[in-house]
Amino acid sequence: MGNKIITIGRQYGSGGREIGEKLAKKLGYAFYDTLLLEKTAGHSCISQSILERYDERLADKWLNTALNSGTMGIDQLPIPIRAAVSQFETILKIGQTESAVIVGRCADYVLREQNNVLSVFIHAEMEHRVSRVTARNKVCEAEAKKLIQNTDRHRAAYYEYYTDKRWGDSQSYHLCIDSGLFGIDGAVTVLQNCLQSIPK
Amino acid sequence: MGNKIITIGRQYGSGGREIGEKLAKKLGYAFYDTLLLEKTAGHSCISQSILERYDERLADKWLNTALNSGTMGIDQLPIPIRAAVSQFETILKIGQTESAVIVGRCADYVLREQNNVLSVFIHAEMEHRVSRVTARNKVCEAEAKKLIQNTDRHRAAYYEYYTDKRWGDSQSYHLCIDSGLFGIDGAVTVLQNCLQSIPK
Repeated sequence: MGNKIITIGRQYGSGGREIGEKLAKKLGYAFYDTLLLEKTAGHSCISQSILERYDERLADKWLNTALNSGTMGIDQLPIPIRAAVSQFETILKIGQTESAVIVGRCADYVLREQNNVLSVFIHAEMEHRVSRVTARNKVCEAEAKKLIQNTDRHRAAYYEYYTDKRWGDSQSYHLCIDSGLFGIDGAVTVLQNCLQSIPK
Repeated sequence: MGNKIITIGRQYGSGGREIGEKLAKKLGYAFYDTLLLEKTAGHSCISQSILERYDERLADKWLNTALNSGTMGIDQLPIPIRAAVSQFETILKIGQTESAVIVGRCADYVLREQNNVLSVFIHAEMEHRVSRVTARNKVCEAEAKKLIQNTDRHRAAYYEYYTDKRWGDSQSYHLCIDSGLFGIDGAVTVLQNCLQSIPK
């Protein structure tokens, strides 16, 4: 497998998406964020094998049981789960064919058995994230903080629903970077250098 | 403050200590691990101001109350707490005067208000750590695993007793590195490069 993948998990407001986009540009890699993955995946063509690959990770025991016993068809799966699984299928294809930076959507977990992946988590102290979100979203500090807390709660829940790892825990990633200390461009440089330091 | 400090938290068997020692050598910095800090600190000269600085972090409410109300003297503190506080005092002195790599002992937290610090956490997957510990300690795999789990439980408890952060969580550090992916020398190179990427 000659292609390389960098997956980026990130706290809301940490600049993880921007870091990923700049890194992809510097490396000449494709760039996939959550929205693009949704578009790419579509919601209609979920194969049985893919569902089988992921259904063991679903937290809802009744759903596993229903699927495994054949009393529930794929079409009866809740839409959010079908959508997620469809994106995982897209991520798998990207992981086998392209050099790319992929943001979010449990990409680190989906590609965990491939050895061409560097998994990254970007975080920053709350004050840095609030400052970034107030400027970008034109909201007050209180709203920014609420938005950050809500979004991160959803991201953590999503990640921990589909994987057996903890969102934001250092052990879940190869590299975690505080973008508050390094800044956006500093973090991009850190990542570029790190790619050179992985033994062949 | 012209001196620089790198603090290193680490999972047992991750090679964090070796990485710290090699980094210190390359940078020409002093190197302090837990044992050296114990020797340096001694257990006898704990100032009231230092105790006051840390007593609010102690988890035992009765101890805080007793200290603050004056019904308990410093000499009556449990020895492990006096020892820890004494080491924190030593770390504070090092942080203000020397360029150094400091391993363990909540050094990241003790020096949290200084802007000359890069705080690092080193981790690796269990199989890497077991392999390292079996070779180094001449124990079987089962014993190595038990040793790793016990030591890490103690390290986490110690860290979370004296700080308001979670041991091993990405948010507690500027940088977390999987030494299983990068190797010992790779992690040293990552750290050297990262030091160059911190904006002035």
